[in-house]
Amino acid sequence: MNIPFAFWLVPVASVIALAMAYFFFRQMMSEEEGTEQMRKIALHVRKGAMAYLKQQYKVVGCVFIVIAVIFAFMAYVLKIQNPWVPFAFLTGGLFSALAGFFGMKTATFASARTANAARQGLNRGLKVAFRSGAVMGLVVVGLGLLDIALWFIILGFFYNGSQMALVTITTTMLTFGMGASTQALFARVGGGIYTKAADVGADLVGKVEADIPEDDPRNPATIADNVGDNVGDVAGMGADLYESYCGSILSTAALGATAFAMHGDMQMRAVIAPMIIAAVGIFLSVIGIFLVRTKEDATMRDLLRSLGFGTNVSAVLIAVASFAILYLLEIENWIGLSFSVLTGLVAGVIIGQGTEYYTSQSYKPTQDIAASSQTGPATVIIKGIGTGMISTMIPVVTISAAILLSYMCANHFDLSMNAKSISMGLYGIGIAAVGMLSTLGITLATDAYGPIADNAGGNAEMSELGEEIRKRTDALDALGNTTAATGKGFAIGSAALTALALLASYVEEIKIAMIRAVDEGQTYINQAGEIFNPATADITDFMNFYQVTLMNPKVLIGAFIGGMAAFLFCGLTMGAVGRAAQSMVEEVRRQFREIAGILEGKGTPDYGRCVEISTRSAQREMIFPSLLAIIIPIAVGMLLGVAGVMGLLVGGLTSGFTLAVFMANSGGAWDNAKKMVEEGNFGGKGSKCHKATIVGDTVGDPFKDTSGPSLNILIKLMSMVSIVMAGLTIMF
Amino acid sequence: MNIPFAFWLVPVASVIALAMAYFFFRQMMSEEEGTEQMRKIALHVRKGAMAYLKQQYKVVGCVFIVIAVIFAFMAYVLKIQNPWVPFAFLTGGLFSALAGFFGMKTATFASARTANAARQGLNRGLKVAFRSGAVMGLVVVGLGLLDIALWFIILGFFYNGSQMALVTITTTMLTFGMGASTQALFARVGGGIYTKAADVGADLVGKVEADIPEDDPRNPATIADNVGDNVGDVAGMGADLYESYCGSILSTAALGATAFAMHGDMQMRAVIAPMIIAAVGIFLSVIGIFLVRTKEDATMRDLLRSLGFGTNVSAVLIAVASFAILYLLEIENWIGLSFSVLTGLVAGVIIGQGTEYYTSQSYKPTQDIAASSQTGPATVIIKGIGTGMISTMIPVVTISAAILLSYMCANHFDLSMNAKSISMGLYGIGIAAVGMLSTLGITLATDAYGPIADNAGGNAEMSELGEEIRKRTDALDALGNTTAATGKGFAIGSAALTALALLASYVEEIKIAMIRAVDEGQTYINQAGEIFNPATADITDFMNFYQVTLMNPKVLIGAFIGGMAAFLFCGLTMGAVGRAAQSMVEEVRRQFREIAGILEGKGTPDYGRCVEISTRSAQREMIFPSLLAIIIPIAVGMLLGVAGVMGLLVGGLTSGFTLAVFMANSGGAWDNAKKMVEEGNFGGKGSKCHKATIVGDTVGDPFKDTSGPSLNILIKLMSMVSIVMAGLTIMF
Repeated sequence: MNIPFAFWLVPVASVIALAMAYFFFRQMMSEEEGTEQMRKIALHVRKGAMAYLKQQYKVVGCVFIVIAVIFAFMAYVLKIQNPWVPFAFLTGGLFSALAGFFGMKTATFASARTANAARQGLNRGLKVAFRSGAVMGLVVVGLGLLDIALWFIILGFFYNGSQMALVTITTTMLTFGMGASTQALFARVGGGIYTKAADVGADLVGKVEADIPEDDPRNPATIADNVGDNVGDVAGMGADLYESYCGSILSTAALGATAFAMHGDMQMRAVIAPMIIAAVGIFLSVIGIFLVRTKEDATMRDLLRSLGFGTNVSAVLIAVASFAILYLLEIENWIGLSFSVLTGLVAGVIIGQGTEYYTSQSYKPTQDIAASSQTGPATVIIKGIGTGMISTMIPVVTISAAILLSYMCANHFDLSMNAKSISMGLYGIGIAAVGMLSTLGITLATDAYGPIADNAGGNAEMSELGEEIRKRTDALDALGNTTAATGKGFAIGSAALTALALLASYVEEIKIAMIRAVDEGQTYINQAGEIFNPATADITDFMNFYQVTLMNPKVLIGAFIGGMAAFLFCGLTMGAVGRAAQSMVEEVRRQFREIAGILEGKGTPDYGRCVEISTRSAQREMIFPSLLAIIIPIAVGMLLGVAGVMGLLVGGLTSGFTLAVFMANSGGAWDNAKKMVEEGNFGGKGSKCHKATIVGDTVGDPFKDTSGPSLNILIKLMSMVSIVMAGLTIMF
Repeated sequence: MNIPFAFWLVPVASVIALAMAYFFFRQMMSEEEGTEQMRKIALHVRKGAMAYLKQQYKVVGCVFIVIAVIFAFMAYVLKIQNPWVPFAFLTGGLFSALAGFFGMKTATFASARTANAARQGLNRGLKVAFRSGAVMGLVVVGLGLLDIALWFIILGFFYNGSQMALVTITTTMLTFGMGASTQALFARVGGGIYTKAADVGADLVGKVEADIPEDDPRNPATIADNVGDNVGDVAGMGADLYESYCGSILSTAALGATAFAMHGDMQMRAVIAPMIIAAVGIFLSVIGIFLVRTKEDATMRDLLRSLGFGTNVSAVLIAVASFAILYLLEIENWIGLSFSVLTGLVAGVIIGQGTEYYTSQSYKPTQDIAASSQTGPATVIIKGIGTGMISTMIPVVTISAAILLSYMCANHFDLSMNAKSISMGLYGIGIAAVGMLSTLGITLATDAYGPIADNAGGNAEMSELGEEIRKRTDALDALGNTTAATGKGFAIGSAALTALALLASYVEEIKIAMIRAVDEGQTYINQAGEIFNPATADITDFMNFYQVTLMNPKVLIGAFIGGMAAFLFCGLTMGAVGRAAQSMVEEVRRQFREIAGILEGKGTPDYGRCVEISTRSAQREMIFPSLLAIIIPIAVGMLLGVAGVMGLLVGGLTSGFTLAVFMANSGGAWDNAKKMVEEGNFGGKGSKCHKATIVGDTVGDPFKDTSGPSLNILIKLMSMVSIVMAGLTIMF
């Protein structure tokens, strides 16, 4: 297959990303790690985190082998699957795991170094923490693009240049997305349960019962809590965004192959366009990363502006670059498609701003939650849930507008709905998602920076570095909470757009599976009693053939089950956190009771036991909900066919998206309402109001860090599984 | 039009229902009201409730007049609406309001009488309370059928017997459903905010801060709390179920008119079939009501069995009767359709059982929530939310199975999907909903009995009737909580099925509107460029014409907005309860502080002020969310057309149903977990665990009594509004 010269930008960018990541890593490692005590604590956390990751990868590895064997059986024995699928699936999982591993390794090395750098000044602290976060960001995008480039080159060798070749190649590559999704779900769920079991457990006994501050070394769960920040927030989030990043690029490439199937050479250029936008995004992210710096006596506002400057410059540059890229690739309607990219970028920013409004203590919603603590914990919960539910409006309306606009822009600003315009419109929606995620290198850096600063604060507290240093790490930490809100906007917005693109890829994969079946002698008869030829059918024909309309009870049932799946999944993960936290609470209580002098700081708490409890709970509890996400779409496919699966995916997407926003925002708002009280409002630390907001924060922990973010992945994993299992579905 | 003789059973049954209701009312009124103090308290509650209802009806009356004027404008000036609509809309609201008024009047007269009867024995107490509940049940079904019968007769005079006549009549009658829905939404939301503001407020200060028991006369919010039980649980629930009852009958009649349009006389029989099943259900409900009695030394189990006996006998009889009715009406495939009725009945029972499993303290989920109180309020909340989310599985799977089965049964046990079988299948789904609700007379009696027993307990407590009597009323109250679970199963299950039926009616109404437009000179061109004739098009043709497939971005956006609407609506009502409860808390705190000797029982609390606060908050807060439910479908229709509206309705239905189950079950489980602790488990009353479960119960109050049940109505109101506004939608 003739791969255009421009494509080589993709592997080059991925190598540069990895090289820059290595450069920042070495730079960070050359920093001092601080006092004996600081090094010791960092070592504890690092060992705990690595032990967890090892255990996690062992379990997930087994799951991967089982699934890969099933795929191999489907491909080589049943012959209802592309033969490359088992390998693509495995590499997706492997690269995602690698991204998590490198990111976490960096983060655990960086925390003590950040705390130590903060001793010399705020700017030094920011620089170390942020550059370490950048390692994570660059590793994720670098590995993602590398895997995409490698598979594209390999598959390009084996398929020659017919129209169908690119469609087959791109949909095969999507299965590597399923590997990434599966790995991400386990990482998010396992990490989420781990971190929140430790966090909730530590808070419940430490802050509420024993009245000792956060990260106090007397609390046996502190180390586990700090390990949790790394395994949940760094490794989990890395895997999550790796999956979003690859998913959006791959599904858009697949949509490009379909939409431009009749356009000769332009088909190839449409396929590589999203990859090249992502590649250019890497260069711009690196520029943005270098722009982040601040002056020594920086206020919170300065810090925020400094991070914002880096991200915004990258975003503006990528918007401009998209016009250039699509123009140079000579894609039809390049202006319209560039506006689609712009739509995605703007939507991400609006969702981020909305998230900030509903979760930051600078605005009324969170302030009201803090105020409701005057009437006790119950009103804090009621208010927080109410606020979270109301906060779904902005993201849903924004995403709806983005879908409509990127569809229209991709169709010369027209909203017609024939088969051709639907294909083009979907490509536009996909490329909007790519636009949103193109600057992931830097947005993820600002995200991953948060837990590093958080851990640095923990290290400073446990090493008793004194008020001044703690204040600096606190400033860095608070900053991380705000940037996380923006990052979440991009993550969730891109998840919705990507899921839509995957829905279209599903139809494409059904088409391929049916063509394969026809080649083997199967005949399909449509409603009118005529022979249905999948090879010549367009997207509208498939909708008619399978009657994927809203009057088909199978579609409606699928939608019901999809909506339920989101709730069930959240319920299971919430329950898991509740159970795990309870065993943690009991353990901490036992240590307070049985270890003499522990509360006076004389006895040494058994940190290891708490780490073990978190690890064990997380491993035990993550299996069932994660497998459910894989099993539900397969079962629906076998029982209700294509119509049922599409209903399932739409139901899961709409309910899941809204539920995810609700949970993330309620959790964020509770967290900041507590911080607001801690800053001296409504009685300040130790008051009744403070205790009430701690209840809110504790409930919010699994909302925002376990169940909510896992939904992003659930939505896409269900689509990925459906795509990969298309061959099976059409047999029923 | 020739109305068959069998139809006259419908008005006869409705009159009998009303006569029996009057009979039970007189019987109850002939009971003694007890001591001076009891009478005084009952009078307080009665006056508060009536004052609220008066205020409520005033506000809602204004809204109704405005909407009716708009309809009149559409009908007589724009000519895009049937001229009967404004009147049908008004009577629906009026009859629903009447049902609420009579039910509440009865309930407020019954509470002291129940308490007094309980002084003479448990059986006497049960009889008075249950027969009073029966007044509510019979008034609702009687008024509902009466309104249906009247309109059917009136419209029958004006339209002659063409195939289209019955379609027009039945869809016109649906607008009377919109009147009922609008009234129900205001009643549920207003009543729900009222009752929970009072309840939450009373609990937060009374139980948690001042440590005085529930219903203690020293608490200034007690009277408001008792008033709230009447306006929320009696009047609100009555309006809610009135709306479900009429909605299911009317939409099924409309579906019958379409499905049997080519069947000559059978069309008429298919239209009246759901009405006759409902009429026979009334007779059977009355039989069931007479069967409810228990022996004097009855245990909880005996009581439950006694109520269950009455309901089950009615349910079994209606199942048998359906076969007879459909056979005698000579409906095609009467066996299959009877099985559809059976499916609906069984699904209702399964959902009820599922609800009981997840909310009753006899089972593990609620016991686990109670146990989690040992680690504080945060774990109670986490566990309760997790449990509620998991509990959505049974209802969703059951409803999905019921949809599939009733569809298949109605099609000679076949799952094919052409235009004819879709129409027949939808009729089957509708008739399943009618089956589910046919015994509403008795199920609503067991439901309405709950708040009466609750109020009787309150009266006994405030009148200091002593331990023994209080124990009896407590037994009656506890029983009410369990029967409420079953009742909720029927309410929510029927709401889902009815909403599906309404979705089909929407397509029918679009057809009528388009035919009207064609008559006035409009031409429609389909995708292929041909002229589209709505008069000869079937349901599949409409799906194709408007491209209501899952690949149409308008459908997807509609689904997103529908899902969001459910969350937004809950968020707004939760917020309203939070705000209202907070002002109540502040008022009660003020009275405890300022009125001398109040906590020693010497000073008299200012009950009136609390009643006033609840009333004012409820009235102020109910307007915005309720109007939103009306505005959203209109706005979506104007922006995204028919495809968008159908997406909206499906998104709202699937998300809303799941969310409603989650909230109702979490709330119920928290309530019973608290009761479990109060019975002496985990430290019993006054312990730390008790306080933790009170937090759960307080959060659960708006979950289960405000936001959750309102969603049932929201789902249907959005469909009703879309149907009534169809003429407007096709103009855009």
